[in-house]
Amino acid sequence: MQQRAADESSGCAWALDASLERGEEQMRVLLASRSPQRSAILTQLGIPFRVQPSEHDEQTVPGDPVATVEENARGKALHVAARVPPEPGEVVLGVDTIVVLGDDILGKAAGEVQAREYLLRLAGRTHEVVSGLCLVAGGRVTCGHAVTSVTFRPLSKDALDRYLASGEWRERAGAYAIQGLGSSFIQGVRGDYFNVVGLPVALLADMLEESGVGTLSWLP
Amino acid sequence: MQQRAADESSGCAWALDASLERGEEQMRVLLASRSPQRSAILTQLGIPFRVQPSEHDEQTVPGDPVATVEENARGKALHVAARVPPEPGEVVLGVDTIVVLGDDILGKAAGEVQAREYLLRLAGRTHEVVSGLCLVAGGRVTCGHAVTSVTFRPLSKDALDRYLASGEWRERAGAYAIQGLGSSFIQGVRGDYFNVVGLPVALLADMLEESGVGTLSWLP
Repeated sequence: MQQRAADESSGCAWALDASLERGEEQMRVLLASRSPQRSAILTQLGIPFRVQPSEHDEQTVPGDPVATVEENARGKALHVAARVPPEPGEVVLGVDTIVVLGDDILGKAAGEVQAREYLLRLAGRTHEVVSGLCLVAGGRVTCGHAVTSVTFRPLSKDALDRYLASGEWRERAGAYAIQGLGSSFIQGVRGDYFNVVGLPVALLADMLEESGVGTLSWLP
Repeated sequence: MQQRAADESSGCAWALDASLERGEEQMRVLLASRSPQRSAILTQLGIPFRVQPSEHDEQTVPGDPVATVEENARGKALHVAARVPPEPGEVVLGVDTIVVLGDDILGKAAGEVQAREYLLRLAGRTHEVVSGLCLVAGGRVTCGHAVTSVTFRPLSKDALDRYLASGEWRERAGAYAIQGLGSSFIQGVRGDYFNVVGLPVALLADMLEESGVGTLSWLP
Protein backbone atom coordinates (compact mmCIF):
# COMPACT_ATOMS: atom_id res chain seq x y z
CA MET A 1 0.00 0.00 0.00
CA GLN A 2 2.99 2.22 0.10
CA GLN A 3 5.79 2.95 -2.32
CA ARG A 4 8.88 5.06 -2.32
CA ALA A 5 10.41 6.93 -5.16
CA ALA A 6 14.18 6.54 -5.38
CA ASP A 7 16.23 9.34 -3.91
CA GLU A 8 17.00 11.72 -6.68
CA SER A 9 20.46 12.72 -5.59
CA SER A 10 22.21 9.73 -4.08
CA GLY A 11 20.12 6.70 -5.08
CA CYS A 12 20.54 4.99 -1.72
CA ALA A 13 20.87 6.02 1.90
CA TRP A 14 21.20 9.79 2.00
CA ALA A 15 21.62 12.45 4.62
CA LEU A 16 18.96 15.13 4.77
CA ASP A 17 21.51 17.38 6.29
CA ALA A 18 25.10 16.56 7.27
CA SER A 19 24.55 17.99 10.75
CA LEU A 20 21.57 15.65 11.24
CA GLU A 21 23.62 12.67 10.16
CA ARG A 22 26.31 13.55 12.68
CA GLY A 23 23.65 13.93 15.35
CA GLU A 24 24.68 17.54 15.99
CA GLU A 25 21.28 19.00 15.30
CA GLN A 26 17.79 18.05 16.39
CA MET A 27 15.62 17.32 13.34
CA ARG A 28 12.78 19.79 12.90
CA VAL A 29 10.18 20.14 10.14
CA LEU A 30 9.20 23.19 8.13
CA LEU A 31 5.69 22.19 7.05
CA ALA A 32 4.71 23.64 3.67
CA SER A 33 0.98 23.32 4.36
CA ARG A 34 -1.71 25.23 6.22
CA SER A 35 -3.67 22.01 6.92
CA PRO A 36 -4.51 21.75 10.62
CA GLN A 37 -4.78 17.97 10.18
CA ARG A 38 -1.15 17.75 9.05
CA SER A 39 -0.02 19.90 11.96
CA ALA A 40 -2.01 17.66 14.32
CA ILE A 41 -0.27 14.54 13.00
CA LEU A 42 3.20 16.09 13.45
CA THR A 43 2.18 17.03 17.00
CA GLN A 44 0.97 13.48 17.62
CA LEU A 45 4.36 12.17 16.46
CA GLY A 46 6.15 14.62 18.76
CA ILE A 47 8.04 16.13 15.80
CA PRO A 48 9.07 19.77 16.39
CA PHE A 49 7.83 21.88 13.47
CA ARG A 50 6.82 25.29 12.20
CA VAL A 51 4.34 26.09 9.43
CA GLN A 52 5.00 28.04 6.24
CA PRO A 53 2.13 27.57 3.75
CA SER A 54 3.22 27.28 0.13
CA GLU A 55 1.74 29.38 -2.64
CA HIS A 56 2.53 26.73 -5.24
CA ASP A 57 -0.37 26.23 -7.65
CA GLU A 58 -1.62 22.64 -7.58
CA GLN A 59 -1.65 20.96 -10.99
CA THR A 60 -3.14 17.70 -12.23
CA VAL A 61 -1.16 15.33 -14.44
CA PRO A 62 -4.01 13.78 -16.46
CA GLY A 63 -4.38 10.06 -15.90
CA ASP A 64 -1.49 9.89 -13.42
CA PRO A 65 -2.49 10.36 -9.76
CA VAL A 66 0.99 9.46 -8.47
CA ALA A 67 2.76 11.98 -10.72
CA THR A 68 0.10 14.53 -9.74
CA VAL A 69 0.68 14.27 -5.99
CA GLU A 70 4.47 13.90 -6.20
CA GLU A 71 4.79 16.92 -8.50
CA ASN A 72 2.53 19.00 -6.27
CA ALA A 73 4.35 17.92 -3.11
CA ARG A 74 7.68 18.75 -4.75
CA GLY A 75 6.41 22.12 -5.95
CA LYS A 76 5.09 23.03 -2.49
CA ALA A 77 8.30 21.99 -0.71
CA LEU A 78 10.62 23.74 -3.21
CA HIS A 79 8.52 26.90 -3.15
CA VAL A 80 8.85 27.15 0.60
CA ALA A 81 12.54 26.12 0.64
CA ALA A 82 13.31 28.91 -1.83
CA ARG A 83 11.36 31.50 0.13
CA VAL A 84 12.22 30.58 3.72
CA PRO A 85 15.78 29.24 3.95
CA PRO A 86 15.65 26.21 6.27
CA GLU A 87 17.67 26.48 9.46
CA PRO A 88 20.30 23.82 10.30
CA GLY A 89 18.56 20.53 11.05
CA GLU A 90 15.35 21.69 9.43
CA VAL A 91 13.63 19.60 6.76
CA VAL A 92 11.03 21.12 4.45
CA LEU A 93 7.99 18.86 4.10
CA GLY A 94 5.61 19.17 1.15
CA VAL A 95 2.50 16.99 0.91
CA ASP A 96 -0.35 16.67 -1.55
CA THR A 97 -3.36 14.38 -1.09
CA ILE A 98 -6.07 13.47 -3.60
CA VAL A 99 -9.07 11.14 -3.70
CA VAL A 100 -9.18 8.83 -6.70
CA LEU A 101 -12.38 7.04 -7.76
CA GLY A 102 -11.94 4.96 -10.89
CA ASP A 103 -10.42 7.31 -13.46
CA ASP A 104 -11.50 10.47 -11.67
CA ILE A 105 -9.75 12.69 -9.18
CA LEU A 106 -12.11 14.19 -6.59
CA GLY A 107 -10.68 17.38 -5.19
CA LYS A 108 -12.32 19.81 -2.78
CA ALA A 109 -15.98 20.28 -3.67
CA ALA A 110 -16.81 23.70 -5.11
CA GLY A 111 -20.11 23.80 -3.20
CA GLU A 112 -22.81 21.72 -1.55
CA VAL A 113 -24.18 20.41 -4.85
CA GLN A 114 -20.80 19.00 -5.83
CA ALA A 115 -20.17 17.70 -2.30
CA ARG A 116 -23.45 15.74 -2.50
CA GLU A 117 -22.46 14.38 -5.91
CA TYR A 118 -19.04 13.28 -4.60
CA LEU A 119 -20.47 11.57 -1.50
CA LEU A 120 -23.15 9.77 -3.53
CA ARG A 121 -20.40 8.45 -5.79
CA LEU A 122 -18.26 7.31 -2.84
CA ALA A 123 -21.14 5.63 -0.94
CA GLY A 124 -20.98 1.83 -0.79
CA ARG A 125 -17.76 1.74 -2.83
CA THR A 126 -13.99 1.62 -2.36
CA HIS A 127 -11.79 4.51 -3.47
CA GLU A 128 -8.10 5.32 -3.13
CA VAL A 129 -6.45 8.15 -1.28
CA VAL A 130 -3.08 9.00 -2.80
CA SER A 131 -0.53 11.29 -1.15
CA GLY A 132 2.79 12.54 -2.42
CA LEU A 133 5.42 13.54 0.12
CA CYS A 134 8.65 15.42 -0.59
CA LEU A 135 11.47 16.30 1.77
CA VAL A 136 13.96 19.07 0.99
CA ALA A 137 17.12 19.61 3.03
CA GLY A 138 20.71 20.45 2.30
CA GLY A 139 19.85 21.07 -1.34
CA ARG A 140 18.50 17.55 -1.83
CA VAL A 141 14.94 16.57 -2.74
CA THR A 142 13.44 13.17 -2.00
CA CYS A 143 9.88 12.23 -2.90
CA GLY A 144 7.61 9.26 -2.38
CA HIS A 145 3.92 8.41 -2.34
CA ALA A 146 1.45 6.29 -0.39
CA VAL A 147 -1.90 4.78 -1.38
CA THR A 148 -4.69 3.85 1.05
CA SER A 149 -7.95 2.17 0.04
CA VAL A 150 -11.07 3.46 1.79
CA THR A 151 -14.42 1.65 1.75
CA PHE A 152 -17.60 3.64 2.42
CA ARG A 153 -20.73 2.19 4.04
CA PRO A 154 -23.93 2.75 2.09
CA LEU A 155 -25.32 6.24 2.82
CA SER A 156 -28.95 7.10 3.55
CA LYS A 157 -30.39 10.34 2.23
CA ASP A 158 -30.94 11.54 5.78
CA ALA A 159 -27.32 10.90 6.79
CA LEU A 160 -26.08 12.67 3.67
CA ASP A 161 -28.35 15.68 4.30
CA ARG A 162 -27.14 15.93 7.89
CA TYR A 163 -23.50 15.67 6.85
CA LEU A 164 -23.86 18.37 4.23
CA ALA A 165 -25.60 20.61 6.78
CA SER A 166 -22.66 20.15 9.16
CA GLY A 167 -20.32 21.84 6.67
CA GLU A 168 -17.55 19.36 7.44
CA TRP A 169 -17.17 18.57 3.71
CA ARG A 170 -15.67 22.00 3.01
CA GLU A 171 -11.95 22.13 2.12
CA ARG A 172 -11.70 18.32 2.20
CA ALA A 173 -10.58 16.26 -0.82
CA GLY A 174 -13.53 14.00 -1.70
CA ALA A 175 -15.82 16.11 0.54
CA TYR A 176 -15.38 14.06 3.74
CA ALA A 177 -13.22 14.06 6.87
CA ILE A 178 -12.37 10.52 8.05
CA GLN A 179 -11.35 11.88 11.46
CA GLY A 180 -14.65 13.74 11.99
CA LEU A 181 -18.36 13.04 11.56
CA GLY A 182 -17.29 11.36 8.30
CA SER A 183 -15.88 8.46 10.32
CA SER A 184 -19.48 7.22 10.60
CA PHE A 185 -19.46 6.66 6.80
CA ILE A 186 -16.35 4.47 6.71
CA GLN A 187 -16.52 0.68 6.63
CA GLY A 188 -12.75 0.31 6.77
CA VAL A 189 -9.41 1.21 5.24
CA ARG A 190 -6.48 -0.72 3.84
CA GLY A 191 -3.13 0.96 4.29
CA ASP A 192 -2.01 3.95 6.31
CA TYR A 193 -5.03 5.60 7.98
CA PHE A 194 -3.10 8.84 8.54
CA ASN A 195 -2.60 9.14 4.80
CA VAL A 196 -6.38 9.62 4.58
CA VAL A 197 -6.27 12.29 7.27
CA GLY A 198 -3.61 14.05 5.19
CA LEU A 199 -0.08 12.90 6.08
CA PRO A 200 1.27 9.38 5.36
CA VAL A 201 3.09 8.69 8.63
CA ALA A 202 4.67 5.34 7.68
CA LEU A 203 6.12 6.80 4.46
CA LEU A 204 7.44 9.84 6.35
CA ALA A 205 9.05 7.60 8.99
CA ASP A 206 10.59 5.36 6.32
CA MET A 207 11.98 8.31 4.36
CA LEU A 208 13.39 9.95 7.49
CA GLU A 209 14.95 6.66 8.59
CA GLU A 210 16.64 6.17 5.21
CA SER A 211 18.05 9.67 5.58
CA GLY A 212 19.59 8.82 8.92
CA VAL A 213 16.84 10.22 11.18
CA GLY A 214 15.71 7.30 13.32
CA THR A 215 12.06 6.90 14.30
CA LEU A 216 11.27 8.91 17.47
CA SER A 217 14.88 10.23 17.56
CA TRP A 218 13.27 13.69 17.41
CA LEU A 219 11.85 13.30 20.91
CA PRO A 220 13.53 15.50 23.51
CA MET B 1 -13.19 -7.46 8.71
CA GLN B 2 -16.37 -6.96 10.67
CA GLN B 3 -19.07 -9.27 11.85
CA ARG B 4 -22.29 -8.92 13.74
CA ALA B 5 -23.80 -11.28 16.20
CA ALA B 6 -27.51 -11.86 15.73
CA ASP B 7 -29.85 -9.88 17.91
CA GLU B 8 -30.60 -11.97 20.93
CA SER B 9 -34.16 -10.91 21.43
CA SER B 10 -35.84 -10.41 18.07
CA GLY B 11 -33.46 -11.95 15.53
CA CYS B 12 -33.97 -9.17 13.00
CA ALA B 13 -34.52 -5.44 13.03
CA TRP B 14 -35.08 -4.36 16.59
CA ALA B 15 -35.77 -1.17 18.45
CA LEU B 16 -33.32 -0.17 21.14
CA ASP B 17 -36.07 1.72 22.78
CA ALA B 18 -39.64 2.18 21.55
CA SER B 19 -39.39 5.93 22.06
CA LEU B 20 -36.31 6.01 19.82
CA GLU B 21 -38.10 4.04 17.12
CA ARG B 22 -40.95 6.53 17.18
CA GLY B 23 -38.46 9.39 16.99
CA GLU B 24 -39.76 10.87 20.25
CA GLU B 25 -36.42 10.82 22.01
CA GLN B 26 -32.94 11.87 20.97
CA MET B 27 -30.58 8.89 21.18
CA ARG B 28 -27.87 9.27 23.79
CA VAL B 29 -25.19 6.88 24.98
CA LEU B 30 -24.29 5.78 28.49
CA LEU B 31 -20.67 4.71 28.00
CA ALA B 32 -19.62 1.90 30.32
CA SER B 33 -15.91 2.74 30.01
CA ARG B 34 -13.46 5.19 31.51
CA SER B 35 -11.33 5.16 28.31
CA PRO B 36 -10.66 8.74 27.14
CA GLN B 37 -10.13 7.38 23.62
CA ARG B 38 -13.66 5.96 23.52
CA SER B 39 -15.09 9.24 24.80
CA ALA B 40 -13.08 11.09 22.13
CA ILE B 41 -14.54 8.91 19.37
CA LEU B 42 -18.12 9.49 20.57
CA THR B 43 -17.36 13.23 20.62
CA GLN B 44 -15.93 13.02 17.09
CA LEU B 45 -19.18 11.34 15.96
CA GLY B 46 -21.26 14.05 17.63
CA ILE B 47 -23.07 11.46 19.76
CA PRO B 48 -24.36 12.88 23.07
CA PHE B 49 -23.12 10.69 25.93
CA ARG B 50 -22.25 10.41 29.58
CA VAL B 51 -19.70 8.10 31.20
CA GLN B 52 -20.32 5.48 33.87
CA PRO B 53 -17.30 3.15 34.19
CA SER B 54 -18.18 -0.47 34.81
CA GLU B 55 -16.71 -2.54 37.61
CA HIS B 56 -17.18 -5.76 35.70
CA ASP B 57 -14.13 -8.05 35.98
CA GLU B 58 -12.67 -8.81 32.57
CA GLN B 59 -12.34 -12.51 31.81
CA THR B 60 -10.58 -14.45 29.07
CA VAL B 61 -12.29 -17.31 27.26
CA PRO B 62 -9.25 -19.49 26.43
CA GLY B 63 -8.68 -19.85 22.69
CA ASP B 64 -11.66 -17.70 21.76
CA PRO B 65 -10.89 -13.97 21.30
CA VAL B 66 -14.37 -13.20 19.94
CA ALA B 67 -16.17 -14.83 22.86
CA THR B 68 -13.74 -13.06 25.20
CA VAL B 69 -14.49 -9.55 23.95
CA GLU B 70 -18.23 -10.09 23.48
CA GLU B 71 -18.62 -11.56 26.97
CA ASN B 72 -16.62 -8.74 28.52
CA ALA B 73 -18.53 -6.08 26.56
CA ARG B 74 -21.80 -7.67 27.64
CA GLY B 75 -20.71 -7.87 31.24
CA LYS B 76 -19.64 -4.23 31.30
CA ALA B 77 -22.86 -2.99 29.69
CA LEU B 78 -25.15 -5.10 31.88
CA HIS B 79 -23.28 -4.12 35.03
CA VAL B 80 -23.81 -0.44 34.30
CA ALA B 81 -27.41 -0.91 33.10
CA ALA B 82 -28.24 -2.63 36.39
CA ARG B 83 -26.56 0.05 38.47
CA VAL B 84 -27.56 3.21 36.61
CA PRO B 85 -31.02 2.85 35.09
CA PRO B 86 -30.82 4.32 31.56
CA GLU B 87 -33.02 7.32 30.90
CA PRO B 88 -35.51 7.31 28.00
CA GLY B 89 -33.60 7.32 24.72
CA GLU B 90 -30.39 6.25 26.42
CA VAL B 91 -28.40 3.26 25.18
CA VAL B 92 -25.79 1.59 27.37
CA LEU B 93 -22.59 0.88 25.41
CA GLY B 94 -20.09 -1.71 26.61
CA VAL B 95 -16.84 -2.32 24.71
CA ASP B 96 -13.86 -4.58 25.17
CA THR B 97 -10.73 -4.53 23.01
CA ILE B 98 -7.84 -7.00 22.90
CA VAL B 99 -4.69 -7.49 20.82
CA VAL B 100 -4.27 -10.98 19.37
CA LEU B 101 -0.93 -12.24 18.08
CA GLY B 102 -1.07 -15.81 16.87
CA ASP B 103 -2.60 -17.81 19.72
CA ASP B 104 -1.82 -15.21 22.36
CA ILE B 105 -3.84 -12.34 23.77
CA LEU B 106 -1.72 -9.32 24.67
CA GLY B 107 -3.45 -7.23 27.30
CA LYS B 108 -2.09 -4.20 29.11
CA ALA B 109 1.58 -4.70 29.98
CA ALA B 110 2.26 -5.15 33.70
CA GLY B 111 5.43 -3.06 33.47
CA GLU B 112 8.18 -1.83 31.19
CA VAL B 113 9.79 -5.26 30.84
CA GLN B 114 6.57 -6.78 29.57
CA ALA B 115 5.86 -3.76 27.35
CA ARG B 116 9.26 -4.23 25.69
CA GLU B 117 8.54 -7.92 25.21
CA TYR B 118 5.13 -7.17 23.63
CA LEU B 119 6.51 -4.53 21.24
CA LEU B 120 9.42 -6.77 20.18
CA ARG B 121 6.87 -9.45 19.34
CA LEU B 122 4.66 -7.05 17.37
CA ALA B 123 7.55 -5.44 15.41
CA GLY B 124 7.62 -6.28 11.70
CA ARG B 125 4.52 -8.48 11.97
CA THR B 126 0.75 -8.31 11.55
CA HIS B 127 -1.58 -8.79 14.51
CA GLU B 128 -5.30 -8.51 15.03
CA VAL B 129 -7.23 -6.09 17.20
CA VAL B 130 -10.57 -7.57 18.24
CA SER B 131 -13.34 -5.56 19.90
CA GLY B 132 -16.65 -6.68 21.27
CA LEU B 133 -19.47 -4.14 21.45
CA CYS B 134 -22.77 -4.55 23.29
CA LEU B 135 -25.77 -2.24 23.40
CA VAL B 136 -28.38 -2.45 26.14
CA ALA B 137 -31.69 -0.57 25.97
CA GLY B 138 -35.29 -1.29 26.80
CA GLY B 139 -34.27 -4.60 28.38
CA ARG B 140 -32.66 -5.85 25.18
CA VAL B 141 -29.02 -6.76 24.65
CA THR B 142 -27.33 -6.81 21.24
CA CYS B 143 -23.68 -7.68 20.74
CA GLY B 144 -21.23 -7.82 17.85
CA HIS B 145 -17.53 -7.72 17.19
CA ALA B 146 -15.02 -6.23 14.77
CA VAL B 147 -11.54 -7.35 13.73
CA THR B 148 -8.82 -5.06 12.34
CA SER B 149 -5.42 -6.25 11.15
CA VAL B 150 -2.49 -4.03 12.10
CA THR B 151 0.98 -4.32 10.54
CA PHE B 152 3.98 -2.95 12.44
CA ARG B 153 7.10 -1.54 10.80
CA PRO B 154 10.38 -3.08 12.00
CA LEU B 155 11.48 -1.39 15.26
CA SER B 156 15.00 -0.24 16.08
CA LYS B 157 16.30 -0.59 19.62
CA ASP B 158 16.58 3.19 19.89
CA ALA B 159 12.96 3.76 18.82
CA LEU B 160 11.77 1.12 21.28
CA ASP B 161 13.81 2.65 24.13
CA ARG B 162 12.41 6.09 23.39
CA TYR B 163 8.84 4.79 23.21
CA LEU B 164 9.16 2.97 26.51
CA ALA B 165 10.61 6.11 28.11
CA SER B 166 7.58 8.09 26.89
CA GLY B 167 5.27 5.96 29.03
CA GLU B 168 2.62 5.91 26.31
CA TRP B 169 2.50 2.09 26.49
CA ARG B 170 0.81 2.18 29.91
CA GLU B 171 -2.86 1.10 30.07
CA ARG B 172 -2.86 0.19 26.36
CA ALA B 173 -3.68 -3.31 25.10
CA GLY B 174 -0.56 -4.55 23.30
CA ALA B 175 1.48 -1.69 24.87
CA TYR B 176 1.01 0.84 22.05
CA ALA B 177 -1.30 3.72 21.12
CA ILE B 178 -1.96 3.90 17.37
CA GLN B 179 -3.24 7.47 17.75
CA GLY B 180 -0.12 8.68 19.56
CA LEU B 181 3.65 8.30 19.19
CA GLY B 182 2.87 4.68 18.37
CA SER B 183 1.55 5.79 14.96
CA SER B 184 5.20 5.98 13.88
CA PHE B 185 5.42 2.18 14.34
CA ILE B 186 2.48 1.33 12.07
CA GLN B 187 2.89 0.29 8.44
CA GLY B 188 -0.85 0.09 7.87
CA VAL B 189 -4.16 -1.38 8.96
CA ARG B 190 -6.87 -3.41 7.32
CA GLY B 191 -10.37 -2.77 8.65
CA ASP B 192 -11.78 -0.13 10.96
CA TYR B 193 -8.95 2.10 12.27
CA PHE B 194 -11.11 3.35 15.15
CA ASN B 195 -11.44 -0.22 16.39
CA VAL B 196 -7.69 -0.07 17.09
CA VAL B 197 -8.13 3.20 18.98
CA GLY B 198 -10.80 1.47 21.09
CA LEU B 199 -14.27 1.80 19.56
CA PRO B 200 -15.34 0.12 16.29
CA VAL B 201 -17.28 2.97 14.69
CA ALA B 202 -18.59 1.11 11.62
CA LEU B 203 -19.96 -1.70 13.79
CA LEU B 204 -21.57 0.79 16.17
CA ALA B 205 -23.17 2.66 13.24
CA ASP B 206 -24.42 -0.60 11.68
CA MET B 207 -25.90 -1.82 14.97
CA LEU B 208 -27.57 1.52 15.67
CA GLU B 209 -28.97 1.63 12.15
CA GLU B 210 -30.44 -1.85 12.46
CA SER B 211 -32.11 -0.72 15.67
CA GLY B 212 -33.76 2.21 13.90
CA VAL B 213 -31.23 4.91 14.81
CA GLY B 214 -30.01 6.32 11.50
CA THR B 215 -26.39 7.40 11.04
CA LEU B 216 -25.90 11.01 12.21
CA SER B 217 -29.58 11.21 13.27
CA TRP B 218 -28.20 12.06 16.71
CA LEU B 219 -26.94 15.43 15.52
CA PRO B 220 -28.89 18.40 16.86
